[in-house]
Amino acid sequence: MIVRNFKTIGIIGRHSGPRVAEAVDALSHHLRRKQIEVLIDDSTASILRTREFAVVPRAELGRRCDLAVIIGGDGTLLNAARSLADFDVPLVGINLGYLGFLADISPHDMMACMDDILEGKYQSDERFLLHVVIERDGELVSESDAFNEVVVHKWNIARMIELETYIDGQFVNKLRADGIIIATPTGSTAYALSAGGPILYPGLDAMVVVPVCPHTMSNRPIVIGGDSRIEVIVCNGPPENSQATCDGQITLGLMGGDRIKIFKKEQPVRLLHPARHDHFQILRAKLHWAETPTIS
Amino acid sequence: MIVRNFKTIGIIGRHSGPRVAEAVDALSHHLRRKQIEVLIDDSTASILRTREFAVVPRAELGRRCDLAVIIGGDGTLLNAARSLADFDVPLVGINLGYLGFLADISPHDMMACMDDILEGKYQSDERFLLHVVIERDGELVSESDAFNEVVVHKWNIARMIELETYIDGQFVNKLRADGIIIATPTGSTAYALSAGGPILYPGLDAMVVVPVCPHTMSNRPIVIGGDSRIEVIVCNGPPENSQATCDGQITLGLMGGDRIKIFKKEQPVRLLHPARHDHFQILRAKLHWAETPTIS
Amino acid sequence: MIVRNFKTIGIIGRHSGPRVAEAVDALSHHLRRKQIEVLIDDSTASILRTREFAVVPRAELGRRCDLAVIIGGDGTLLNAARSLADFDVPLVGINLGYLGFLADISPHDMMACMDDILEGKYQSDERFLLHVVIERDGELVSESDAFNEVVVHKWNIARMIELETYIDGQFVNKLRADGIIIATPTGSTAYALSAGGPILYPGLDAMVVVPVCPHTMSNRPIVIGGDSRIEVIVCNGPPENSQATCDGQITLGLMGGDRIKIFKKEQPVRLLHPARHDHFQILRAKLHWAETPTIS
Amino acid sequence: MIVRNFKTIGIIGRHSGPRVAEAVDALSHHLRRKQIEVLIDDSTASILRTREFAVVPRAELGRRCDLAVIIGGDGTLLNAARSLADFDVPLVGINLGYLGFLADISPHDMMACMDDILEGKYQSDERFLLHVVIERDGELVSESDAFNEVVVHKWNIARMIELETYIDGQFVNKLRADGIIIATPTGSTAYALSAGGPILYPGLDAMVVVPVCPHTMSNRPIVIGGDSRIEVIVCNGPPENSQATCDGQITLGLMGGDRIKIFKKEQPVRLLHPARHDHFQILRAKLHWAETPTIS
Repeated sequence: MIVRNFKTIGIIGRHSGPRVAEAVDALSHHLRRKQIEVLIDDSTASILRTREFAVVPRAELGRRCDLAVIIGGDGTLLNAARSLADFDVPLVGINLGYLGFLADISPHDMMACMDDILEGKYQSDERFLLHVVIERDGELVSESDAFNEVVVHKWNIARMIELETYIDGQFVNKLRADGIIIATPTGSTAYALSAGGPILYPGLDAMVVVPVCPHTMSNRPIVIGGDSRIEVIVCNGPPENSQATCDGQITLGLMGGDRIKIFKKEQPVRLLHPARHDHFQILRAKLHWAETPTIS
Repeated sequence: MIVRNFKTIGIIGRHSGPRVAEAVDALSHHLRRKQIEVLIDDSTASILRTREFAVVPRAELGRRCDLAVIIGGDGTLLNAARSLADFDVPLVGINLGYLGFLADISPHDMMACMDDILEGKYQSDERFLLHVVIERDGELVSESDAFNEVVVHKWNIARMIELETYIDGQFVNKLRADGIIIATPTGSTAYALSAGGPILYPGLDAMVVVPVCPHTMSNRPIVIGGDSRIEVIVCNGPPENSQATCDGQITLGLMGGDRIKIFKKEQPVRLLHPARHDHFQILRAKLHWAETPTIS
Repeated sequence: MIVRNFKTIGIIGRHSGPRVAEAVDALSHHLRRKQIEVLIDDSTASILRTREFAVVPRAELGRRCDLAVIIGGDGTLLNAARSLADFDVPLVGINLGYLGFLADISPHDMMACMDDILEGKYQSDERFLLHVVIERDGELVSESDAFNEVVVHKWNIARMIELETYIDGQFVNKLRADGIIIATPTGSTAYALSAGGPILYPGLDAMVVVPVCPHTMSNRPIVIGGDSRIEVIVCNGPPENSQATCDGQITLGLMGGDRIKIFKKEQPVRLLHPARHDHFQILRAKLHWAETPTIS
Repeated sequence: MIVRNFKTIGIIGRHSGPRVAEAVDALSHHLRRKQIEVLIDDSTASILRTREFAVVPRAELGRRCDLAVIIGGDGTLLNAARSLADFDVPLVGINLGYLGFLADISPHDMMACMDDILEGKYQSDERFLLHVVIERDGELVSESDAFNEVVVHKWNIARMIELETYIDGQFVNKLRADGIIIATPTGSTAYALSAGGPILYPGLDAMVVVPVCPHTMSNRPIVIGGDSRIEVIVCNGPPENSQATCDGQITLGLMGGDRIKIFKKEQPVRLLHPARHDHFQILRAKLHWAETPTIS
């Protein structure tokens, strides 16, 4: 493994929470003592008490950093991954609170793990994102990236919507459901899992299409290749009742006749994990596998 | 079985569709030839071309009729069942289009089935409804009935909501999910089934509580007695992001601290079915049980 | 609540395990100090070192005891419940190891809970059992009781079996599956849950019919009234490939044309729980509801 | 596409059924009229009335044929695919009865489809098989191929078994279940689907590991890369209670300490489909997607 030289490190913290400021502060000083330039994301700066370190907008952070440390939880990391995807900056996730699938380093281990990473002791884990574009009358009207999943779902109605799905131009089926999820392997352990989808191994070059509460019970999740192109059309009722949502964080409105096209984003995201990282260990802990309550 | 004497029959049709007017018209004349007084629901009258029969508001129809015939589909019948629940009027459902769980008589069989019913050849099937009340600061702010189900669900957000459920005052669990369904046996083959709930036998004195896409996979549906009282509290985020919906047709808004209480409605609904009615036959047809495509 | 006078108490222990003998011994002496007659089940006596207490066969224990304490786990209690069902002896379950749904008292709380129960501080919880009979050419060839469930399942083959199910004489469906489970509310949290069944509230007068890995995905669990009579027929291949199993503990062989009839056993079982017993608390603990791993 | 020159064609029929002999006979004569050499599989020859065509053992058929036509159903084709995998013979499947996922040509279309295929009008569809080896004390004791799936399952007991799974040498989890399925994309629509697995797109280079009725509900199916190596160990009770089964047709016995290793077989199988073949159309037909019963 080539040891990357991390000379400039960006820090992105969750927008709120008492422990974020403290952790950002501690890490910044720790890195400075090692002669590393620290850039603080401007969305994070507001929660810090002092202004000892350079504060930069997200895009500048992406351009200038060799590494970005995200302090918060999986939600903060999803946001950072989408915004930094175009900059080829590897990401490290520190969780404050619960063990995350992505933010897998605890605050207690933060300093030791960072030291290891700076010395090249880490695992590099390449993940892909999705890109979604909404086309209206042949024109692109909106677009976004997603790290976990794109969901096309009913919005302000209580009834199911009707969706047509095409894979690589081929008609798959017409679905009555609350919605449909197109998830990456990364997203397969998030909302897609709650909707009955399988777990995809993180590095697998595949996506999973998961119907949400389908009217027809045989409408099971479908796993397809990572290079497939998916198109979804909402085909009943006023499409204003539906939305496309990326990672539960970005919402794209829909209108009649819109075509929702989803495919792999060219630029991947690289996550750095501690050297001893074991994806299945995290799955076992998060999903309570093989755990039983001890003596009552 | 005591043969009821159906002297006055109300007819309620679906609001739209070319075949509704025709079927209402044919049935009205058929009944008049048998000396039966016919009352047309005023929501239906607008789609009829002639005004040969008395047109009355829903409540008057409920007060004056000995029987109500609903022509449309399960949706039309759900609406009629809620609005007539207080009047003790038995219901007959005619479907126009697809076989329904409730509207189980086809237009082709309509006349013959009605003649049988008038002669007392029918099965009477008692079903219960739910009543839901929303309490805010100890005051009732809204209420409704539901024949299929009450759903408490996220509305204009893409994230899961957090719900606490109590059964008969006892804490059950705290749930992160898209929502929660409380369904009657009648509703167990509707939305609750899509969300992974079991089928309840129609006459069973029980309800089923079904989480919708729960974050924790062991949050399975729970079947409880028909006399249980359920209370649901939305406990994260602005509750304006959540709603309670009855039968997918009636929406009750929620605000912070609202308590959603759900229990069996005292007055049942009686459905009349053709004498040869077989609930499992309808299940087999609707759910494609034991059907396989024949030679390709 | 009428305080029962428990003058004679039977003790049934799990067949093996180092801690069983110790717990049986401690409890026996504790009860004798309170002037209570102790009878040891003869299957348990063999693991005890001393013979200070009367050892009796199970049936005599059933006839003479006012209460039976089962020390082991849910499996030991299932066995005891079936064997004592005809004797109207209330049961108390002590678990050695893991919290059980039935054996819900830990060894640490055993003495205090027993003292409470002897003083009348307990909850009494009536549960029903199933009875299964196998009929061949109109003759009863075997029968058994089940507390959790009766399973009709493929045995020494790798292919699915074909099953026909009737409820109260009415044809339900023809099923291709690994098997079918008929579970009591007690059994709804055991094997039936693994096969996708719902949780039934313990006191509910209902059973659930759960197909195991059905070929047709719309073959969902069906909840029916506790007084329904179920009949299952294995209708493909040599029936010697199928078996009926009660509680995973008793096996009944099948032959061609056998009819498997399952219905509620007349005599219920009474479980005594500590006064503070909360069924949902046990569900929350056993099913990891609302638990998330803390900081990694 | 290079038009293969199919000079010698082997025919393999299902072992029984009145229509098999007729179809084999008709096809043989049809091919002979086109100057194609026909070889009949010796397992099929016994059901034919005449002996006009050369009858050969399966291995010879594999060595000499340029194409094999399988007449029967998916089961017959699974058997043929395993036995011919080492010979690089493309397969065509004719179904007698129900539309199959593999045997996708109806008898009515048989002649026309064969003529098209002989003219090079077909789709070629490469699928992989699994290979399973059982190791005991470091020695290989048995092995087999599987086209749909390998299942490690309880056999002659009614209780769950405990399984440990490793992927590429990494511990995944310890599972209490009826068994575990390792399925190819081809097998993802067979038993794995009944056990709750997802549908894998046929050409996907991936396998799916599906627990059968797992005790812990969060033990969801896991999709992994096609080049992964899986190892399963049965770790409770006498392993004689467990078996490994390939495609529901081949059974491998197990003993204490056996290691079951499963990985992709090097030689793929090629299926030839009619030129207009559409995998999703077959899924829609077989799984009753978007079909609703018409007027009752």
